Amino acid sequence: MRNFNFFERVSRAYNDHPTLFRLVALSTIAISGGSIVYAEANIGSGGRAVVDPTKKKKVVVLGTGWAGMSFLKNLNNPSYEVEVVSPRNYFAFTPLLPSVTCGTVEGRSIVEPIRNIIGKKKYDARYWEAECYKIDPVEKKVYCRTAAELDGKKEFSVDYDYLVIAMGARVNTFNTPGVEENCHFLKEVEEAQNIRKNLIDSFEKASLPNLSEEDRKRILHFVVVGGGPTGVEFAAQLHDFVNDDLVKLYPKVKDHVKITLLEATDHILNMFDKRITAFAEGKFQRDGIDVKLGSMVVKVTDKEISTKARSNGETFSMPYGLCLWSTGIGPRPVIKEFMQQIGQGNRRALATDEWLRVEGYNNIYALGDCATINQRKVMEDISAIFSKADKDKSGTLTVKEFKEVIADICERYPQVELYLKKKQMRDIVDLLKEVKGDAAKETIEVSIEEFKSALSQVDSQMKNLPATAQVANQQGAYLAKCFNRTEECEQNPEGPIRFRGEGRHRFHPFRYRHLGQFAPLGGEQTAAQLPGDLVSIGHSSQWLWYSVYASKQVSWRTRALVVSDWFRRFIFGRDSSRI
Amino acid sequence: MRNFNFFERVSRAYNDHPTLFRLVALSTIAISGGSIVYAEANIGSGGRAVVDPTKKKKVVVLGTGWAGMSFLKNLNNPSYEVEVVSPRNYFAFTPLLPSVTCGTVEGRSIVEPIRNIIGKKKYDARYWEAECYKIDPVEKKVYCRTAAELDGKKEFSVDYDYLVIAMGARVNTFNTPGVEENCHFLKEVEEAQNIRKNLIDSFEKASLPNLSEEDRKRILHFVVVGGGPTGVEFAAQLHDFVNDDLVKLYPKVKDHVKITLLEATDHILNMFDKRITAFAEGKFQRDGIDVKLGSMVVKVTDKEISTKARSNGETFSMPYGLCLWSTGIGPRPVIKEFMQQIGQGNRRALATDEWLRVEGYNNIYALGDCATINQRKVMEDISAIFSKADKDKSGTLTVKEFKEVIADICERYPQVELYLKKKQMRDIVDLLKEVKGDAAKETIEVSIEEFKSALSQVDSQMKNLPATAQVANQQGAYLAKCFNRTEECEQNPEGPIRFRGEGRHRFHPFRYRHLGQFAPLGGEQTAAQLPGDLVSIGHSSQWLWYSVYASKQVSWRTRALVVSDWFRRFIFGRDSSRI
Repeated sequence: MRNFNFFERVSRAYNDHPTLFRLVALSTIAISGGSIVYAEANIGSGGRAVVDPTKKKKVVVLGTGWAGMSFLKNLNNPSYEVEVVSPRNYFAFTPLLPSVTCGTVEGRSIVEPIRNIIGKKKYDARYWEAECYKIDPVEKKVYCRTAAELDGKKEFSVDYDYLVIAMGARVNTFNTPGVEENCHFLKEVEEAQNIRKNLIDSFEKASLPNLSEEDRKRILHFVVVGGGPTGVEFAAQLHDFVNDDLVKLYPKVKDHVKITLLEATDHILNMFDKRITAFAEGKFQRDGIDVKLGSMVVKVTDKEISTKARSNGETFSMPYGLCLWSTGIGPRPVIKEFMQQIGQGNRRALATDEWLRVEGYNNIYALGDCATINQRKVMEDISAIFSKADKDKSGTLTVKEFKEVIADICERYPQVELYLKKKQMRDIVDLLKEVKGDAAKETIEVSIEEFKSALSQVDSQMKNLPATAQVANQQGAYLAKCFNRTEECEQNPEGPIRFRGEGRHRFHPFRYRHLGQFAPLGGEQTAAQLPGDLVSIGHSSQWLWYSVYASKQVSWRTRALVVSDWFRRFIFGRDSSRI
Repeated sequence: MRNFNFFERVSRAYNDHPTLFRLVALSTIAISGGSIVYAEANIGSGGRAVVDPTKKKKVVVLGTGWAGMSFLKNLNNPSYEVEVVSPRNYFAFTPLLPSVTCGTVEGRSIVEPIRNIIGKKKYDARYWEAECYKIDPVEKKVYCRTAAELDGKKEFSVDYDYLVIAMGARVNTFNTPGVEENCHFLKEVEEAQNIRKNLIDSFEKASLPNLSEEDRKRILHFVVVGGGPTGVEFAAQLHDFVNDDLVKLYPKVKDHVKITLLEATDHILNMFDKRITAFAEGKFQRDGIDVKLGSMVVKVTDKEISTKARSNGETFSMPYGLCLWSTGIGPRPVIKEFMQQIGQGNRRALATDEWLRVEGYNNIYALGDCATINQRKVMEDISAIFSKADKDKSGTLTVKEFKEVIADICERYPQVELYLKKKQMRDIVDLLKEVKGDAAKETIEVSIEEFKSALSQVDSQMKNLPATAQVANQQGAYLAKCFNRTEECEQNPEGPIRFRGEGRHRFHPFRYRHLGQFAPLGGEQTAAQLPGDLVSIGHSSQWLWYSVYASKQVSWRTRALVVSDWFRRFIFGRDSSRI
């Protein structure tokens, strides 16, 4: 081999790995700026594996949100060809949307082009910028529509062997009149940017001459409907934006600003620990954010919001300037139509089994906010479980027989484990003991009736997963891993026993691992609910939050952009140009 | 005094000068990242001087572009109160707009809120986000309209003592049919962002399945109309964006991309030196940018542009996907109406005198793209000049008499100096010599007829100033300095002799100092035309361009943002998310 001198080496390194090289340049800065940025770079990839193209199965992915992105990022099996259909050619890191509304972070810093993600993968992938408006599970086709007319038409269809539905959901207005027309939503980057422009505009409008005090107050009354994490974070960010930056630029109108948070239930952040809820309500009170609990919005006009108190049915009207509606989600029209088509018309989201397959369709998967896992009940399968466990067909189950299937039962029916945990029992045999009394364990034998009675309460522990980015992300990764190991698991199934069939399931069912949740409360205070009932409130969790969010960005690019946006804000404050 | 320990001192410093403190933190990075960012910070200001408010004259400024911003930034006289009316609550650094179209720089990095600029000044200032739609010079009022309806109406009026019209101009379509509806313009930040989205969208559209080759080619045909600096820079930036970044993400469509530049005259960049024009045309040819000279656009439809050759009148139609129209400027409707009102209806911009006063109005100033200086001709005033110079009223001018007014003539009529320069004469006496023959200088005496004949050609050297940011910027600064020194110059006028009146003009007339001009040509090559006929082409001027643009930003904030955007692009390339 030749001897390289330093410059030759550097130049070779640069030509072979330009991105890596630039990253080194970057990390010098990132590290000196605080070492929040870490790990998980996924540089380059190089050659695609050679697979006979005629044998390749086509996977069509609908959507480029959390679930879709996570699936595409984790898929690694060159025996599939992938087509992605989505009206958004990028993935957006949605937890930072409330930060975009106040200009703490740039809209474009939290997005990553989907072509950057799929361009580096080993499988063949194509992306179509279009919206799917119809799914035909019989013909195995999806019908798509582009924004622009091409060759005189806007529609085209795509065939699939496997379909992955990850289209997310839309905001649920509960058919409240006037919401669509007058309220802002916060699900897309464009919506966040639009809220920011409208915010600044409110301050400009309220500063105009020849305006009554009443009108000034109305324009600067910001209302948030829905006390979930998005609504709470928006209210907190808005409060900071107003107090840190806007009061300096609009000194004459600052006293007119009012922020109101309307929540229909008895508490804000009610999916969080009670300590967090209490802290958040207290902090908002100290900050002067008016939290109105138990008030349901019944009507919105261009200048007024009407609410009804849940306690006594009293109605109340308040003038407002800008309203963010973030109360929950509902199915998109195309999903709704598909649900009707496959007999799920009365559900709120697409029902899947524990392997994320849409019920009744082995080749259609649904994940993220548009889907919900319909966990099978123990009581539905109780006879099948009993007869599968009763190996000697004696009509009774011995403890030994039972122990052999315990692991499979717990895997197939996770509610069993939750129930045991709730009852503080060590294992499932304790359940039987409860029925049979305190006889010596090993000699217990139970009949089918006793078995049923022992497990009768178990299904009460079934819970739907929350519609969060975390769930969607884990589901996408889970499904990609299944696709990656199809051939392998076909031969050596790794899932639990099929109680109602023969053999074993190919894959382990999807299991959600809750990694904690943040609720930024403004003023550099964040509440964090961590796994295992840990609760952290204050500055420390603010930094934890920053570092987790920075590390969770899909690419090194977005990571660096988000961190540098925080840095910019720290130095210069938030910008107030209406752009 | 107390002894402070280190931490107390730092904390005191932080509390007293938070911005300064943060800047120190920033400069550590800015300097280590390359010392392009320099000077001109204008930190804080503190108390406003106390002037009797009843005596304060009200200056109303229309517009927050280059001229308006420069006026507001340089004004420093607390005896005025200022009201700013503009639909844009920010100043935009327009030379970087072409960079925004390709995502090299973020739209929000090149804007500075106007409230940040006026908030730091010594004079009282207010800003109204509204558009002026009518100027009434008799009642001394401007009528403004806001975007939103307030108290049932959108209009309000503002009184003024002095009016500064700096509303810029709009794109001139020369009434070409279809331009307004189908072409993009590049005068506002929103327009640049919109072009960026449409660019990415073109690539997504052209990638869709079931599309004819012909349509793919049409969609990826980008046409630029107008070979001025904006059009040329956009074409160059677009070429780089496509070749550096987009071809990697859209490998299947890259061969369909075509960029065409249409120019009605015989050369692109015809306000630049011939060497630059030739270099630019050569570079574009090598880059594959199709430059069509001498072709005028006569019609634009949604899919086709029709041109007519200037040479032989032949017409030609080309299908296109996206078209940028940047051919020149015309007056805004409100300016047009005002011009008709004051008898300037047939001009292309508001005519002012050399002190930027609208002709006939001592309290109305116009600057920037909406105005043009109507330089007074020597021949109009020739008798007045003669009689003012002929101190002894002898009917002839001696050289001595003449020399006494030479400086005033040259200041009042800058065309005299230009003419001498062109004729390569040392001073004005040489002009007289030309008329009288080569007699001994000191004994020359000229009659009025001889004087007229000597100066008869001088007015041919009058030139209109170009409609550039540089001119507007200098005019704003000039006018602010006049306002700053009103009281002083009222007492001690510093301008030239009033040839048609008594005494001296209060101020020196406005004189434009050309500081050079850049034309970025893509591929890290920039042509620069510097003062004194210096021409620089290549990488070196690229860096010069970067550093000048960085230093010309209005604030430390935008300076840092723009530099960090360049840095981001260097590391990560340009982003292709359609957002």
